[in-house]
Amino acid sequence: METSEKPQVGIIMGSDSDLPVMQDAVKQLEAFGVPYEITVVSAHRTPDRAAEYAKTAIERGLKVIIAAAGGAAHLAGVTAAMTTLPVIGVPIKTETLNGMDSLYSTVQMPPGVPVATVAINGAKNAAILAVQILAIADESLKQKLVQYKKDLNDKVLEKAKKMEGGQI
Amino acid sequence: METSEKPQVGIIMGSDSDLPVMQDAVKQLEAFGVPYEITVVSAHRTPDRAAEYAKTAIERGLKVIIAAAGGAAHLAGVTAAMTTLPVIGVPIKTETLNGMDSLYSTVQMPPGVPVATVAINGAKNAAILAVQILAIADESLKQKLVQYKKDLNDKVLEKAKKMEGGQI
Amino acid sequence: METSEKPQVGIIMGSDSDLPVMQDAVKQLEAFGVPYEITVVSAHRTPDRAAEYAKTAIERGLKVIIAAAGGAAHLAGVTAAMTTLPVIGVPIKTETLNGMDSLYSTVQMPPGVPVATVAINGAKNAAILAVQILAIADESLKQKLVQYKKDLNDKVLEKAKKMEGGQI
Amino acid sequence: METSEKPQVGIIMGSDSDLPVMQDAVKQLEAFGVPYEITVVSAHRTPDRAAEYAKTAIERGLKVIIAAAGGAAHLAGVTAAMTTLPVIGVPIKTETLNGMDSLYSTVQMPPGVPVATVAINGAKNAAILAVQILAIADESLKQKLVQYKKDLNDKVLEKAKKMEGGQI
Amino acid sequence: METSEKPQVGIIMGSDSDLPVMQDAVKQLEAFGVPYEITVVSAHRTPDRAAEYAKTAIERGLKVIIAAAGGAAHLAGVTAAMTTLPVIGVPIKTETLNGMDSLYSTVQMPPGVPVATVAINGAKNAAILAVQILAIADESLKQKLVQYKKDLNDKVLEKAKKMEGGQI
Amino acid sequence: METSEKPQVGIIMGSDSDLPVMQDAVKQLEAFGVPYEITVVSAHRTPDRAAEYAKTAIERGLKVIIAAAGGAAHLAGVTAAMTTLPVIGVPIKTETLNGMDSLYSTVQMPPGVPVATVAINGAKNAAILAVQILAIADESLKQKLVQYKKDLNDKVLEKAKKMEGGQI
Amino acid sequence: METSEKPQVGIIMGSDSDLPVMQDAVKQLEAFGVPYEITVVSAHRTPDRAAEYAKTAIERGLKVIIAAAGGAAHLAGVTAAMTTLPVIGVPIKTETLNGMDSLYSTVQMPPGVPVATVAINGAKNAAILAVQILAIADESLKQKLVQYKKDLNDKVLEKAKKMEGGQI
Amino acid sequence: METSEKPQVGIIMGSDSDLPVMQDAVKQLEAFGVPYEITVVSAHRTPDRAAEYAKTAIERGLKVIIAAAGGAAHLAGVTAAMTTLPVIGVPIKTETLNGMDSLYSTVQMPPGVPVATVAINGAKNAAILAVQILAIADESLKQKLVQYKKDLNDKVLEKAKKMEGGQI
Repeated sequence: METSEKPQVGIIMGSDSDLPVMQDAVKQLEAFGVPYEITVVSAHRTPDRAAEYAKTAIERGLKVIIAAAGGAAHLAGVTAAMTTLPVIGVPIKTETLNGMDSLYSTVQMPPGVPVATVAINGAKNAAILAVQILAIADESLKQKLVQYKKDLNDKVLEKAKKMEGGQI
Repeated sequence: METSEKPQVGIIMGSDSDLPVMQDAVKQLEAFGVPYEITVVSAHRTPDRAAEYAKTAIERGLKVIIAAAGGAAHLAGVTAAMTTLPVIGVPIKTETLNGMDSLYSTVQMPPGVPVATVAINGAKNAAILAVQILAIADESLKQKLVQYKKDLNDKVLEKAKKMEGGQI
Repeated sequence: METSEKPQVGIIMGSDSDLPVMQDAVKQLEAFGVPYEITVVSAHRTPDRAAEYAKTAIERGLKVIIAAAGGAAHLAGVTAAMTTLPVIGVPIKTETLNGMDSLYSTVQMPPGVPVATVAINGAKNAAILAVQILAIADESLKQKLVQYKKDLNDKVLEKAKKMEGGQI
Repeated sequence: METSEKPQVGIIMGSDSDLPVMQDAVKQLEAFGVPYEITVVSAHRTPDRAAEYAKTAIERGLKVIIAAAGGAAHLAGVTAAMTTLPVIGVPIKTETLNGMDSLYSTVQMPPGVPVATVAINGAKNAAILAVQILAIADESLKQKLVQYKKDLNDKVLEKAKKMEGGQI
Repeated sequence: METSEKPQVGIIMGSDSDLPVMQDAVKQLEAFGVPYEITVVSAHRTPDRAAEYAKTAIERGLKVIIAAAGGAAHLAGVTAAMTTLPVIGVPIKTETLNGMDSLYSTVQMPPGVPVATVAINGAKNAAILAVQILAIADESLKQKLVQYKKDLNDKVLEKAKKMEGGQI
Repeated sequence: METSEKPQVGIIMGSDSDLPVMQDAVKQLEAFGVPYEITVVSAHRTPDRAAEYAKTAIERGLKVIIAAAGGAAHLAGVTAAMTTLPVIGVPIKTETLNGMDSLYSTVQMPPGVPVATVAINGAKNAAILAVQILAIADESLKQKLVQYKKDLNDKVLEKAKKMEGGQI
Repeated sequence: METSEKPQVGIIMGSDSDLPVMQDAVKQLEAFGVPYEITVVSAHRTPDRAAEYAKTAIERGLKVIIAAAGGAAHLAGVTAAMTTLPVIGVPIKTETLNGMDSLYSTVQMPPGVPVATVAINGAKNAAILAVQILAIADESLKQKLVQYKKDLNDKVLEKAKKMEGGQI
Repeated sequence: METSEKPQVGIIMGSDSDLPVMQDAVKQLEAFGVPYEITVVSAHRTPDRAAEYAKTAIERGLKVIIAAAGGAAHLAGVTAAMTTLPVIGVPIKTETLNGMDSLYSTVQMPPGVPVATVAINGAKNAAILAVQILAIADESLKQKLVQYKKDLNDKVLEKAKKMEGGQI
């Protein structure tokens, strides 16, 4: 999956089993019309590919990287180690520790190499955060974000009305 | 504290007792020459000010907000609710739960409103992340980040040499 | 949903998906004959509405607010920041951290702005606590609470009898 | 310690070693001019006294009870079991589990018997919550709370000014 | 349910919903031929009954009490407060915190009032522990325990044989 | 350390560094006049000695064993595996996980082999529990326990009086 | 189950209910052609057998032991106490604490007696680790590991290609 | 620091601040006479060096790698990704989460890439585990391990004697 326009956001995940969660990021980027690329990169099983991906990200035109992984989730951190682009980390929920392991492995980075961590399984927010970052230098995206926030607000108001009216 | 240039990064914290931790962010932004402003904004004790701060952030020229808070740490989330700027959250270590409460309160945001969370007390990384975000549209910052990464690397090599030589 | 009498208790929740849990609060208030209102208010998606709701609560005649939210659960805290009414927080169970995140975000409030927190998903107890608060100045409610406690006791005795008799 | 006026708030703690923490509640009640009584009641070492205290609370004129305990912190729950008054629980920080044990023991009450739980060591907030509860039927307290909230706000603004001015 | 012989072990639980778990204790006591009684006693909904149960336990001939409860699990501790008999606590698994709350509420008792805590949902072991305690002064039970340990051992050996033989 | 009378309680600990904590058990047993023995037995460093200790405990006249260990705390469980005596486990606080590791390693025993677990560092309660167990068949100990409970109660009353009188 | 060749790896588990998880270890060892034996050994129900197994392991030709257990998981530690062979511990996921208890009981060993711990339910990795250990002195295994790593890499690349092509 | 003989064990750590903890590993390897090398390698600050170190480890003659790191501790995992040697991970205690983050980041590795994890700050055991692994093919080391275990045992016996004699 990859948009025809030159991708600005790279979505990588440690395993293809993370795809169902990460589809939320894809949908959100598409809703904002942000070109992206998506693929599997494993910090542990394809370490050279991970290095290659991170090191060439800037020259390939990427501006933000979203990296998702579970368990001892090193993908985001390892990527952040090899690029100066902002890296957004999505800790994937795990069967045993519910993603608490993924969260700690992603967020507790040492001084010098930050990972912008979102909630466990927070793929949608990872995409929105990427858009917010891109919007700093993109007026049209900025407008879309304003509209998005308005829509979020309106949807809640609608639900509120229904609940107040006893319809839900 | 505020740089004479128009601030691009706003650093806010829930209490002035968070300042010792947040000084690391200040130092790092200064090292990168990024203009910033810094103040106290409490989501719980000055809610109107928090709303005002977030809502006027864009028109005041801010591009990224760093928000630090401890315990039921709502500052970053509440700020993110009222601006489309990227908001970086710094969970402050607490005396009772060591910052696990701050971390969960900051990172576990609902779909639609992300907070880019860094490590507990990770003020330095918050600043670097802010620089990385600004660098997307700022070639000079990009170069500084490349140099910063190189310096990080070199400092470790130097330490490695010393350790290998039995000097530490 | 709203009682015809002027509401004394306001039930708000961060998402309509919290309604199944919060129905327990509704039922309990109805059982005590306490007029209430119920709606959706999101601290993150409708921050202005949240402020408005909290700030007008007293003049609209509310005496207690019950606020339910999950994850980085800011609704109760944000509401408490903007009213002097007692605010009862219900941490909603989450899929990833089981509500431990909601609990910490709700209960670990900073000095000056308390939230009266009940158990994770403790909607029923939130309602009873609201009734206990109202009963301080309402003799009839006080009597109902005495009866409620007696009924609780009797139901257990009945179960105990059955178990002792080998019927369950 | 006990005010000369008839106490409206009863502060009890499981051990006199909790007093340093609970002094914050005392000071806050005194600041609001709310008459209180304070004593040691142990759910485990003086169970009869605990029952007696809870059962006679209403007739002795108490309107709210603040109960503090650490570890397997049963005092608040046991008190709530024997009175219809609202009971505010203060989980005390422990040496081994940092108060996580106290928090869970206090907040996770079963349906029917709520405890209004505040933060670990949150004695000050317990007092404010008690005042908020009393203020429902006490206009003068209501005004004091409005003032208190204003003061909280002003103190932060003052700190903010200082920080912005580089004085702290 | 109650054996015809004078009960030596009292099994109490906070709710009849704990019965499926506690049946394991019943079965185990029956297997050892230890007379028991079983009933519901809630520390929170029937506090007087809880006190009564604990205070009369010795004169009614009980020698050990097994108390099971979930969440803010006070039953074992409250019982231990009012009897000098050994009280065995069974923390019941909860839907939200998996029984971690029950465990902490049961085991973290203050100096002076111990509860002999077994594993979360460890009803079977509670019964065996009760038997071990009774066996100190009962030679016939001691023999049965020796046999029980031998049977445990033999069952594992049998399983081991099967697994080594590839039958499982 | 060993009483001249034939020991009824054996206190063992995984390391002599646990002695400061376990002194509380010693003092308590001495206060009750219960003969005991105390030594170091490591499940990991002296496994044969651990087996020997457990297997000969009954014939040496022991009636209860108190086993203390920290970290992957196997001593109590391993002892319980090799004797039919009741084994009381004391999880020792650790530097890294505060004793949460010791607690889980001690209490979460599999069906068939219980360990009567007390609080983290709960050496005093381990001794009292041992006394309660011995008291089942020892009328004089039973009387001492009744007195002990009365003293506990009285000491709290005294503290309560002082606090009510403003003396503490 | 046991290979015809003299086993080099011994797989033991605390209960036959752990077999479904441990089959992953079996499959992996078979894939590498490493002879193994597999059986049930319970540290708590068959302590003598556990001692026997560990003490005779070397003379029976074993070079590595994989020990799996859940809850208060002592099997790996107890085995490590009685052999100088490297012992790999597999913490088994539990129903109540999700294997956090098993993990702490396995990994937090005291100085002097290490257990090489892998992830909760990480049976496959236990086998690979065993192979890595054997490969130190076995050139053919070393080659197989190189190939295995290459295959891991290639499988990810294939998945990546598919995802990039929009086929998954 | 490096032994004159060709190193068989490589000790790497993410920061020179980990050295005080890792000295225990050094001492232990020296006690066993195992040649080693020690240096700083940061997965995040010197990713190329980390790759280089891991990839050349075998040809440089290393047989086991010990990798220590704290927080989002990726060093051991990243190293394991790039060598077929057994990698032992030492989770370093952290100031905020006490090393729980380091532990999860180190042990929860995905299938295919194991890390042999020891206790938090368990540097000594990491060294012993390395020796156990080397001893498989080194009869002299095997003998030393047998002696080491005997010494461990004897030291405890000595302590036990002293404690029994009341000398400690």
